[in-house]
Amino acid sequence: MKVALFDEWRVGIVDDRGIVDITDLIPGWEPVWPFSWMLHFIQSFPQRRGEWAAALAERPAIPLENVRLRPPVPVPSKIVAAPVNYLLHQQEMGGAQGVYAGSTIKTIEDYGLFLKPPSSIAGPGDEITLPFAGRRTDHEAEVGIIIGRTVRNVTEAEADEAIFGFTGLLDLSVRGQEDRPYRKGFDGFCPIGPWIVTRDEIPDMNRIGFRLWVNGELRQQGNTQNMIYSMRRLVALASYQTTLYPGDIIASGTPEGVGEVKPGDALHLEVDGIGALKVAVAPRPAEPPLTMGDWFDKFLQARGVAK
Amino acid sequence: MKVALFDEWRVGIVDDRGIVDITDLIPGWEPVWPFSWMLHFIQSFPQRRGEWAAALAERPAIPLENVRLRPPVPVPSKIVAAPVNYLLHQQEMGGAQGVYAGSTIKTIEDYGLFLKPPSSIAGPGDEITLPFAGRRTDHEAEVGIIIGRTVRNVTEAEADEAIFGFTGLLDLSVRGQEDRPYRKGFDGFCPIGPWIVTRDEIPDMNRIGFRLWVNGELRQQGNTQNMIYSMRRLVALASYQTTLYPGDIIASGTPEGVGEVKPGDALHLEVDGIGALKVAVAPRPAEPPLTMGDWFDKFLQARGVAK
Repeated sequence: MKVALFDEWRVGIVDDRGIVDITDLIPGWEPVWPFSWMLHFIQSFPQRRGEWAAALAERPAIPLENVRLRPPVPVPSKIVAAPVNYLLHQQEMGGAQGVYAGSTIKTIEDYGLFLKPPSSIAGPGDEITLPFAGRRTDHEAEVGIIIGRTVRNVTEAEADEAIFGFTGLLDLSVRGQEDRPYRKGFDGFCPIGPWIVTRDEIPDMNRIGFRLWVNGELRQQGNTQNMIYSMRRLVALASYQTTLYPGDIIASGTPEGVGEVKPGDALHLEVDGIGALKVAVAPRPAEPPLTMGDWFDKFLQARGVAK
Repeated sequence: MKVALFDEWRVGIVDDRGIVDITDLIPGWEPVWPFSWMLHFIQSFPQRRGEWAAALAERPAIPLENVRLRPPVPVPSKIVAAPVNYLLHQQEMGGAQGVYAGSTIKTIEDYGLFLKPPSSIAGPGDEITLPFAGRRTDHEAEVGIIIGRTVRNVTEAEADEAIFGFTGLLDLSVRGQEDRPYRKGFDGFCPIGPWIVTRDEIPDMNRIGFRLWVNGELRQQGNTQNMIYSMRRLVALASYQTTLYPGDIIASGTPEGVGEVKPGDALHLEVDGIGALKVAVAPRPAEPPLTMGDWFDKFLQARGVAK
């Protein structure tokens, strides 16, 4: 089943005809921040999917071009992310020619997992403003795992039951030395979508192909079979002594081919079995600073406030 | 005003007599995860505080010893944290004798801010299980800022209006090389409380004293006047191109004196003008691994699952 949010945060199921509105079947639905009904919707899916499937069969569909899709989980309780989870991406980041030339890039064993804030979530068609004119900001194409139930200390064997589904995800990242949550946490830095495909419709979660184009040019081409930590192992690791909740997102890492995004760019992520997530980069960045101390002082000065 | 949650997530106002139950005055109150009504409560405080103050004056109080206090914001949309925000703490972490001996410890200009997950929140009286028997886990005593409204790109001059209040906060931290959100994000690693004191009752947010005892021994003694980034500057920085929401927490950093916590320890944080937050460390840690690769394999083996 493809679960989408659209227009004023209505709930729809997507099929070949378009999107079927089932908002009236969602208890507690109210389109106000923090959209916690969406977390309960995901939690109650095992009990309610029959009802929703029946509605899908009976109801008319709205053509997709007539709706505005929204991020399918607007406010998860957390977004856990894998820092380096593809060998070829690990290689391109370090070494003599790498993004961080001269640095040794490690993997999950050394870095652990990190977090992005829910406020960074964006959806299909959204426009993302780059926070710094003078700093490199990269695209990282990924597949996002959506957690389906409250779990803790799950094993890889138990991971399937913890997973509600999958979605496309972009982990936008300013390059530099600050901690990842800062460089990867600005508003709009976590586009997700176009919808969630439930786990049962993904034939093999460790064999999902995906591609990212920037302005029509193919930049990244990956397959989850090349992940260092598999989907199930990521769920197990993320849940170690840490409770995962329905709607929590795990960003599973990006393959090689990361590259810079520029103001005005059009990003197009395509995930096999899921669909296309397209977002735009705003024509102007927010501020033109070079270092954090530098930009913050300039930022304050520009607003007429002394340090 | 001192705003507390207690027993089955009821809402109370604390005065000299004890706690006054005003749960019936909170629209949308329902004691189910993710407790989003608490975020709306904080958001609507400017409009509703008169009504709540009137109830406080009229109603009987329950003695504090008869209630179980809960973390006052059980599920914020994010917890932003300052990595190194006191000079003497910066010094104790690096250098020849430091926690990370031989390393150069930088500050916010270099590290930016990081995130802890809402799932790490604990409350007064809670028991925290250390995730690794073989790794050092430290206490970091702090003052937490609670955001009161939806804001973005606020200046220091505008920061006061963004702040709902303050609470005691412990930023528990496993030492090691992984990213901070991993080392500082385990369940129970962010005790907050005992309640929130609203901004108007804190005479000077840049002059709040606080102390931490472990088993009755004074370990940390700090004052927010020694922060490198002031309270208002932290709010400005955290909000740069990042939307802050009502209930979001900013952990403002820890002073010198951080030290190891051991199974069975009793932690007692006292923040001037706020109150005492006491938590316990569970008598046994969760698992005994030494490195992440190592512990995770042992963890899986212990549960009968091959790598």
